[in-house]
Amino acid sequence: MSLLDRVQNPKDLQALSPEETVAYCDELRRFLIESVEATGGHLGSNLGVVELTVALHRVYDFALDRLVLDTSHQVYPHKVITGRKDLFPTLRRTDGLSGFMARGESPYDSFTSGHAGTAVSAAYGIAYADALLHRTDRRVVALVGDAAAASGATFEALNHAGHEGKRVLVILNDNKWSIAQTVGGLSKYLNRMRTLPAYREFKKDFHEAIGMLPLVGAPLARWTESVKEAFANYMNPGHLFRELGWTYFGPENGHDEPRLETLLRDLKRVDGPVLLHVVTEKGRGYGKPTKDACHAVSAPAPKPSVVAPGPKPVSYTKVFARATQRLMEDDPRVVAVTAAMPDGTGLADVAAKLPERVIDVGICEQHGVAFAGGLAEAGLKPIVAVYSTFLQRGYDQVWQEVAVQGLPVVLAMDRAGIVGGDGVTHQGLYDIAFLRTFPGITLMAPADPVELERMLAHALSLTGPSALRYARASDPDASLPGNDVPVAQGRGVLLRDGTDVAFVAYGTMVRTALEAAARLDAAGVSAAVFNARFARPFDGAAVERLARRVPLVVTLEEHSVQGGFGEVVLSHLASLYEPVDATVRVLGVPDRLVPHGERADWLARFGLSAEAVADFVLRTREAARPHRR
Amino acid sequence: MSLLDRVQNPKDLQALSPEETVAYCDELRRFLIESVEATGGHLGSNLGVVELTVALHRVYDFALDRLVLDTSHQVYPHKVITGRKDLFPTLRRTDGLSGFMARGESPYDSFTSGHAGTAVSAAYGIAYADALLHRTDRRVVALVGDAAAASGATFEALNHAGHEGKRVLVILNDNKWSIAQTVGGLSKYLNRMRTLPAYREFKKDFHEAIGMLPLVGAPLARWTESVKEAFANYMNPGHLFRELGWTYFGPENGHDEPRLETLLRDLKRVDGPVLLHVVTEKGRGYGKPTKDACHAVSAPAPKPSVVAPGPKPVSYTKVFARATQRLMEDDPRVVAVTAAMPDGTGLADVAAKLPERVIDVGICEQHGVAFAGGLAEAGLKPIVAVYSTFLQRGYDQVWQEVAVQGLPVVLAMDRAGIVGGDGVTHQGLYDIAFLRTFPGITLMAPADPVELERMLAHALSLTGPSALRYARASDPDASLPGNDVPVAQGRGVLLRDGTDVAFVAYGTMVRTALEAAARLDAAGVSAAVFNARFARPFDGAAVERLARRVPLVVTLEEHSVQGGFGEVVLSHLASLYEPVDATVRVLGVPDRLVPHGERADWLARFGLSAEAVADFVLRTREAARPHRR
Repeated sequence: MSLLDRVQNPKDLQALSPEETVAYCDELRRFLIESVEATGGHLGSNLGVVELTVALHRVYDFALDRLVLDTSHQVYPHKVITGRKDLFPTLRRTDGLSGFMARGESPYDSFTSGHAGTAVSAAYGIAYADALLHRTDRRVVALVGDAAAASGATFEALNHAGHEGKRVLVILNDNKWSIAQTVGGLSKYLNRMRTLPAYREFKKDFHEAIGMLPLVGAPLARWTESVKEAFANYMNPGHLFRELGWTYFGPENGHDEPRLETLLRDLKRVDGPVLLHVVTEKGRGYGKPTKDACHAVSAPAPKPSVVAPGPKPVSYTKVFARATQRLMEDDPRVVAVTAAMPDGTGLADVAAKLPERVIDVGICEQHGVAFAGGLAEAGLKPIVAVYSTFLQRGYDQVWQEVAVQGLPVVLAMDRAGIVGGDGVTHQGLYDIAFLRTFPGITLMAPADPVELERMLAHALSLTGPSALRYARASDPDASLPGNDVPVAQGRGVLLRDGTDVAFVAYGTMVRTALEAAARLDAAGVSAAVFNARFARPFDGAAVERLARRVPLVVTLEEHSVQGGFGEVVLSHLASLYEPVDATVRVLGVPDRLVPHGERADWLARFGLSAEAVADFVLRTREAARPHRR
Repeated sequence: MSLLDRVQNPKDLQALSPEETVAYCDELRRFLIESVEATGGHLGSNLGVVELTVALHRVYDFALDRLVLDTSHQVYPHKVITGRKDLFPTLRRTDGLSGFMARGESPYDSFTSGHAGTAVSAAYGIAYADALLHRTDRRVVALVGDAAAASGATFEALNHAGHEGKRVLVILNDNKWSIAQTVGGLSKYLNRMRTLPAYREFKKDFHEAIGMLPLVGAPLARWTESVKEAFANYMNPGHLFRELGWTYFGPENGHDEPRLETLLRDLKRVDGPVLLHVVTEKGRGYGKPTKDACHAVSAPAPKPSVVAPGPKPVSYTKVFARATQRLMEDDPRVVAVTAAMPDGTGLADVAAKLPERVIDVGICEQHGVAFAGGLAEAGLKPIVAVYSTFLQRGYDQVWQEVAVQGLPVVLAMDRAGIVGGDGVTHQGLYDIAFLRTFPGITLMAPADPVELERMLAHALSLTGPSALRYARASDPDASLPGNDVPVAQGRGVLLRDGTDVAFVAYGTMVRTALEAAARLDAAGVSAAVFNARFARPFDGAAVERLARRVPLVVTLEEHSVQGGFGEVVLSHLASLYEPVDATVRVLGVPDRLVPHGERADWLARFGLSAEAVADFVLRTREAARPHRR
């Protein structure tokens, strides 16, 4: 029986001998590589924390103690150790194992995590509560990557917790990589710490030498103690953290499991806030240290059985990158900002050609958006490329640094809608609701790749802020039928007319509406399809005209029905002096948390497939009261 | 002619002699005290930066150069110098001078600011753009208070800008005060810097002494250079900033105008990111250094001509504090969190009695909310007391650390609605829209002080997250007629019945609805008033019943009409299988930026006074089509 099979829970792990433990680490690493190569997933950071996670589970009992993982891209070893190994073939799949720490999936997962920079806050909250409740029976550990540590939220937590002095252990997992490479002064600082040559020897030599100093009176006496203190501080490479009130240990080799165990046991006896700096190798043991492999690997793509005719599908991310590069080449004032997502947003390709004009600010959406406000104030045309869900972190900066100033910052929101494998924390389901309250902002969503390019150009032509949302999806690289029409501010496009039902669709759902309309044709129901293009300013006049001649209006969006595009339509129609008689129905993502899984699966479950939408129309017409026909 | 009158713009200031300049500072300080004592306003931080602002305007030309103020509570001297002295009697009044830096008010105000922590980001954006555009003719300066410097957003910006090396000057205005006292490790660090005794002498002595060291071979040779570096780093008190890549100068006396001028001129020649640490005295020269006076002073309250009978008015802030204290005394698990607003939120009174259980995290809403998530995970019942507008900074933490986890954190949102003198950046107009998309959250708004107490208790009884919104207002300390009914989850209260119109009102607007209904009585129109209490879960059944028997439903809220309570009502009614015939009209704050000024003025201008609401109903009924009657 392999050690991997023998360890079904942390107790089994604790029962292993030291030698078996080291062997277990190797087996665990091999298992992760094989398993994640088959399913896809975030391999790199997980391979880096194998020994660290094993050591943590041997020293702590996380059924009682609390482990909070920042972002939790490093949760796989924890999942294997806590009895979820056999679920790995379902990783990130519909109804399968979450790729993140997920409350409810296991009693060992106390805090769901996917956005970076908050683990120290949450862990410190738990530690503070335990202190207040006089709970001395358990400890709290936060594991934070070096990139997440550069997030402002982490700084806020370190600053507060260091000041208060309550007991908590933060492990800084320093693998020198953000999702892309870590940027910023903190990164340089950590790097310097890692490369300080043999600081312990320096320290020893210093103490020897200081004893040899000739005592030449007052000045020297005065400063000897200070020099000692200064030196101790500086040579202890954690002084930045020490200044914030933390007891610092490190840097330590994160792949020496026995040493880590010893350290963790020792640190249990240290009171107050403790920071352990561990250096690990992202992707350790993985034979293919390509840039992509370091962060995430994709599952092998299934071969398409038939090659479809017509334009090849292209991802919206690629189209965005292509369009951005073209626009940057045309206008030297256009620049792009990313928060540690040059690959995910497609900007890496652009940066390769125009490095000065693609700015990676690290996992710092707050700063990225406010910085873009400054760029725009000085006359540039910044495009902030960001996942919809991560823009939530910069929400207040979109408000104060962009909307209040009325500055022409373009927010390009990738992964808007259902995101697939990443799941609950990454869904981009709220951006219409949180952005449309801002006076003067323009909100758009393309229905096809060509429209994305046109909308981006349109956004750059505006004098005020704007945001585009597009999905993690690929579509044929051409205009939808009838959609090859220039973009005009606040104007939608009637793609096909009809008399029985009008689909008023936004973004990705325009294609679905066209497909549903085709299905309805077969059922003898005549459907109009309106591509709204803009959620704000909304083409109310066009939709009103439809609602005055078609008895049923169905709005469609890949966004929460709460506060989304459907409510824009409802709100407009309700405000009309002369009421419309049409029944209006809002279809979108229901008001619930949406887990990981195939985007198509969840859209179908939510009644947002073409088939389900067509069925909905048929059922609604069936049920409609005579006086509404 | 006084110097104050002679200086009508920065050019005049630059023409003063050094002696006149010092005298001008005194006149400016006296003017601010007299003026702000009459109008009310943020006196303390402005008195602290008189000399600094004068020096800045003598060294820079901010018609061309750029000045970005963090939070801009220190903008008054700048306003006086840039020709706005005569507008000071209108400070923070309706249609008067803004209390903050405000784009559009003056060409010298390049960036509107009110929320803390973003000035370095914006300034660095401008500097980065200038570098990219090869603009060498101007400089960019950000002025940041020490409390704002502890905000995570500032850290993100320092980290990025320090790394990139472009030219920007950040002045850290260290007055040892946040809005309340600065908290956190950074504060302790700054304090240590300020008190380092004569570090320059230490440095000199050290360099002398190091020359006397006996050279005893390899070990000593190896470490001598390192000791020098270590010592230089440590004795230069800015090493924390230097580690992030900044050239640090200071601490300097912020009240020595000539010295500051010299320094600023010298620093103009330094390239790259420069941080100047200036120590100032908040409230300098103000004879009444009370705690309140340090931050803001209130205008003298006009004496009421007649004392109204019945219960005395009480502010919702006070009621919140009273209720919180009672609930904390009843249940040891209840704790309260504030982000540097113990006074503004009323928690200072509670903290005086229960200091361990009122936690001030500094201007760090992100950390505050995530920390509360941790507190709740560990079994406490945290109440986060925060202004509606500042919760925007913790939006993503409400999402991930509270809503996704489903944790029972209570968000007590003060200043929800029109806030008065603070104006555009501080309006609390979006919280319904940005919170109601989160599955499982409960949203409430009290209509009277008694209801606030009941709702707070109700919120603490829930197993999931909740948020209460209440205004910067005072109301008689009693239940509204008919409202003395226990709070039940998702249930509103019909306060009075009627047959011609139904007001469905939320929070503050319930009182307005009752007053409007009384006016309509006089006009022979019968109005029902429904206190919705909950925006989520919404009492759809009760409102549907009303909408089926009353021809006109008017929703009322002190929130943007975009994505707010009115759309909750519209959305619910539109979703009904059997449509309602009632016309629904949504009244709320229009879709525009709302400046400073009296809350009552703006409510009236927006048609949200009782009189305007009654008139609206009369006009709407007049216009209604016969078949709707």
